[in-house]
Amino acid sequence: MPPTVTQDAVLTDSQIAELAQQLRVDAVRAADAAGSGHPTSSMSAAELFAVLLARHLRYDFDHPENPANDHLILSKGHASPLLYAAYKAAGAVTDDELLTFRKLGSRLEGHPTPKIPWVDVATGSLGQGLPIGVGVALAGARLDHLPYRTWVLCGDSEMAEGSVWEAFEQAGMEGLQNLTLMIDVNRLGQRGPTRHGWDLDAYARRIRAFGWHTVEIDGHDIDAVDEAMATARTNRGAPTAIIARTRKGRGVAAVENQEGKHGKPLPDAEAAIRELGGLRDLRVQVRKPADAERQPREAADPHAPLPRYDKGAAVATRTAFGEALAVLGDRRADIVTLDGEVGDSTKAQLFAAGHSERYIECYIAEQELIGAAVGVGVRGWTPYACTFAAFLTRAHDFLRMAAVSRSDLNVVGTHAGVAIGEDGPSQMGLEDLAMLRGIHGSTVLYPCDANQTVQLVTAMAERTGITYLRASRGEFPVIYGPDDAFPIGGSKVLRSGDEDQVTLIGAGVTVHEALAAADKLATEGIRARVIDLYSLKPVDAKTLRAAAQATGRFVTVEDHHPEGGLADAVLESFGNGHPMPRLTRLAVYSMPGSATPAEQLDAAGVSAPSIAAAARKLVAD
Amino acid sequence: MPPTVTQDAVLTDSQIAELAQQLRVDAVRAADAAGSGHPTSSMSAAELFAVLLARHLRYDFDHPENPANDHLILSKGHASPLLYAAYKAAGAVTDDELLTFRKLGSRLEGHPTPKIPWVDVATGSLGQGLPIGVGVALAGARLDHLPYRTWVLCGDSEMAEGSVWEAFEQAGMEGLQNLTLMIDVNRLGQRGPTRHGWDLDAYARRIRAFGWHTVEIDGHDIDAVDEAMATARTNRGAPTAIIARTRKGRGVAAVENQEGKHGKPLPDAEAAIRELGGLRDLRVQVRKPADAERQPREAADPHAPLPRYDKGAAVATRTAFGEALAVLGDRRADIVTLDGEVGDSTKAQLFAAGHSERYIECYIAEQELIGAAVGVGVRGWTPYACTFAAFLTRAHDFLRMAAVSRSDLNVVGTHAGVAIGEDGPSQMGLEDLAMLRGIHGSTVLYPCDANQTVQLVTAMAERTGITYLRASRGEFPVIYGPDDAFPIGGSKVLRSGDEDQVTLIGAGVTVHEALAAADKLATEGIRARVIDLYSLKPVDAKTLRAAAQATGRFVTVEDHHPEGGLADAVLESFGNGHPMPRLTRLAVYSMPGSATPAEQLDAAGVSAPSIAAAARKLVAD
Repeated sequence: MPPTVTQDAVLTDSQIAELAQQLRVDAVRAADAAGSGHPTSSMSAAELFAVLLARHLRYDFDHPENPANDHLILSKGHASPLLYAAYKAAGAVTDDELLTFRKLGSRLEGHPTPKIPWVDVATGSLGQGLPIGVGVALAGARLDHLPYRTWVLCGDSEMAEGSVWEAFEQAGMEGLQNLTLMIDVNRLGQRGPTRHGWDLDAYARRIRAFGWHTVEIDGHDIDAVDEAMATARTNRGAPTAIIARTRKGRGVAAVENQEGKHGKPLPDAEAAIRELGGLRDLRVQVRKPADAERQPREAADPHAPLPRYDKGAAVATRTAFGEALAVLGDRRADIVTLDGEVGDSTKAQLFAAGHSERYIECYIAEQELIGAAVGVGVRGWTPYACTFAAFLTRAHDFLRMAAVSRSDLNVVGTHAGVAIGEDGPSQMGLEDLAMLRGIHGSTVLYPCDANQTVQLVTAMAERTGITYLRASRGEFPVIYGPDDAFPIGGSKVLRSGDEDQVTLIGAGVTVHEALAAADKLATEGIRARVIDLYSLKPVDAKTLRAAAQATGRFVTVEDHHPEGGLADAVLESFGNGHPMPRLTRLAVYSMPGSATPAEQLDAAGVSAPSIAAAARKLVAD
Repeated sequence: MPPTVTQDAVLTDSQIAELAQQLRVDAVRAADAAGSGHPTSSMSAAELFAVLLARHLRYDFDHPENPANDHLILSKGHASPLLYAAYKAAGAVTDDELLTFRKLGSRLEGHPTPKIPWVDVATGSLGQGLPIGVGVALAGARLDHLPYRTWVLCGDSEMAEGSVWEAFEQAGMEGLQNLTLMIDVNRLGQRGPTRHGWDLDAYARRIRAFGWHTVEIDGHDIDAVDEAMATARTNRGAPTAIIARTRKGRGVAAVENQEGKHGKPLPDAEAAIRELGGLRDLRVQVRKPADAERQPREAADPHAPLPRYDKGAAVATRTAFGEALAVLGDRRADIVTLDGEVGDSTKAQLFAAGHSERYIECYIAEQELIGAAVGVGVRGWTPYACTFAAFLTRAHDFLRMAAVSRSDLNVVGTHAGVAIGEDGPSQMGLEDLAMLRGIHGSTVLYPCDANQTVQLVTAMAERTGITYLRASRGEFPVIYGPDDAFPIGGSKVLRSGDEDQVTLIGAGVTVHEALAAADKLATEGIRARVIDLYSLKPVDAKTLRAAAQATGRFVTVEDHHPEGGLADAVLESFGNGHPMPRLTRLAVYSMPGSATPAEQLDAAGVSAPSIAAAARKLVAD
């Protein structure tokens, strides 16, 4: 067994070559112990990681919170055995823990997650590491003003993902010299050859066209890797992509550069380890970063007054959102706003006016929008990512993975529902509540007036997990006072009495329709309770159950498809021990066309007349 | 007023210039009549459309079903006034209809949809026209073997969307010479300047790097546009991108090339029309295509026997899917399979073996996967688009828009749920049922055994709208016979008796857990009905209501997040007049890690012991 290198030693080239072999051996061992995993995808990038650890990464494993630490994002998350083997070589995990890979309770999961303190974000859905890395690097260049570097390892297969090209564009145009991408071009995807095989120049041409510096190398040549990384660290004005020709399964003839060897342990691990030169116990001293202090974030005015709206005034909730966010930017120096080139519509632009340094324009690239938001969140900033509710569907996978990353992320979707009017279904968010409710650990809010919006926008900043606010395009009357409280998980009972016969439950635009319906019903002698269910997740089970007990009849009304939205949120509160009310579910069942907002609500059957009719029928039955 | 050009005339350059002005005038008039819309985004592309109509498009407006017709996709769907003005110039819509733009009931919606017979697909969510156009062009080159051409008009802003780069890559590598992209580089997005402004070469460099032919022109120069289109039609071996420098709002000084003029009618339409030279009534004779017959699609073996599995055999539903699809390919010549570089896992690859000409590899680019599927569907092929259920979230916006397009599209998501085991949450589809149920007009199927899968895969081919099949990674025992019937909208009652005290409802993997739980409960004297709810949308309300009436207690169990999946599908059937049962909802509430499939089901609380415990509690309460 080769000698252990002490903590003080600098590794020679041949020691780095040994380290690379050790990473391979440990990747093989981890997958063998697990009975599954991706050793061959790990083996191709062993030199890339060995050189990075020994010579270029600046990272304090004892203090992952050190603000000067570099960031290493394994975009090809299936190569987790390589990452975990590297952690072992760096002395951060033990060999025993390495062999818990993929086992119940182990933090060394099949794909890395931030359960591990040195992992910034979960990966495993390909094409996400670079967009998020761009966010981390943007934070370094524009927010933190710290010299840390962001290193991202991608596979060649994931270059097919459009999200990667959104990231190339954003990083290239922002000139993120603090970002280095390594592409492990091992030429074999899951089911066979990639599109470009070993045509490194195919990648380089494309990436250069997006304003990056590129270096093409033999990814198993220690010197070449070292030189490329040194170049990346010193190159100015542009991010660098190191495009490395490698061999999948490198070092073990039974699998090297062969199809059909993806995503499975090696057939004979013992023989493979022998072929790789046997077990080693090298330790690499990853250099710690130069000391750096996180810059103090001083709020311009911690007590800046929030917007206050007069009852009865006509204000769009998107406007209240933008105005509140702008004040929040004064109150807190950690708020960062990102928008997908619709800031004039989402009103996120109101934030930009006073805090341009904390406003990130992502153009029409919603995956990068969410990826960058996750990335700045990694650095401790509090992101608000904004676009039309409809277009958030573009980033569904990023939102899903942000939850796996345990990100604290605020998302705002405007122009929700048929109430937008003439623009038609392509612009209508009619699936957003279902999408966001389905995200693990999420919070889903949908205010109906401006003062409520202000409170919720402010509360979001304190919330963990993915917090979504749905905002509307049109103006609606302010119905609450500026000092009313709207706790997350609460609701507002807007009309109620002891003799209520039916409960009308709406949120956002349909609250106003429900109120109008209740007024109409009252003239007919039907007493309707009205609940504003502004918090769809968590939902106010207590108030809903009380209403069910009191009235026995619910009409739910939502400007959303019938699946996964308000009605389903309501029904969550019933079941075990809580008798369910009779319920009529009003929602957008039909495919809208173009029409005015009022016509749209009527046509969808979610306006006051439809609500009143449904209530009448329930009461009469 | 200039003279009307007769149907037989070929337009001169100056007449085309007049036609362009007419398109502008009509766009201005349509938006003015509507009080909303995007005239300035229409005006920049008027020459592109005028030249295309007059000289290069081959289209029979009287017979949109003519298989030889070119396809024209307005990816920048907000420029619908231009498209509708072009239809008027082509004699396809009247001036009266043009002025119904954006009004209730008009087929001329804010963004085009296939309610209009000459519109192939809905647009308006940017970055979708090109990916779909690639599908149409792929069909021309590889399936139809017909010389029609696909023309796509994109805006410059939408070049930021990653989906566009997925399409560039697919088209470039496939050498789709039958595809022409026109980019209307008017330099202004919604809220201000685009990233690249008028830097045409920024676009050209990027697009050329992806293997396209590019032409940079002044988009208002009739000659230059004409020559570029002629070049595009004759260029061989690669698709062509015509990158046209244009001016937003061209021709009206009050708006031309100015910020803040996006998406609103012109301030003074009358003055603008005067400035544009007044009303015109030119007609353009769009040349019809040369006659072409749709090639007969002859099935290799219309009676090829479907796979049959023996009861008790252990078969993964993904395997049954692949084997059934392969036979369906023999039975029907219109089936086309598309996969996102995971065909060995989804088992779509089994189709490729016998029908490689109808297998489209989309690599890891799920937006292009769905876009291409919609595109081949435009040509009358029956697509099955396959990837992991988790990664379909990447294409949520494409699926949403496919519904607006009235596409008939089959989607298969494999590796659903925690039951995949060690790979962990990044690979687990836990939101797919919610996502697909929320798509307008969708069908959602989730088989639990191989014979059931075969029947459902076959039935999908006959279904309209978006039809989703969820398939599982692991092997489960076959519980049905090969001749059992599984109508869409049905369910299977697997255990029942007159004295049932509780109903256990599962689908897919949880059916097997529910059966095991029922067996256990039976030993304790608790009689449980078991329902296999393989059709989640539409759902079998009759059987569920009967079970509610008979047992009064439901345990729903799903390998999916609690929101938007099986439980919510069950609850749809209750409400108005149908008393709701007491219900315990078992689902994946926690964030999974890595573990074996059985451990995962246990940890999530959706395995037999949890089901039995929930049933016991319900019965005891």
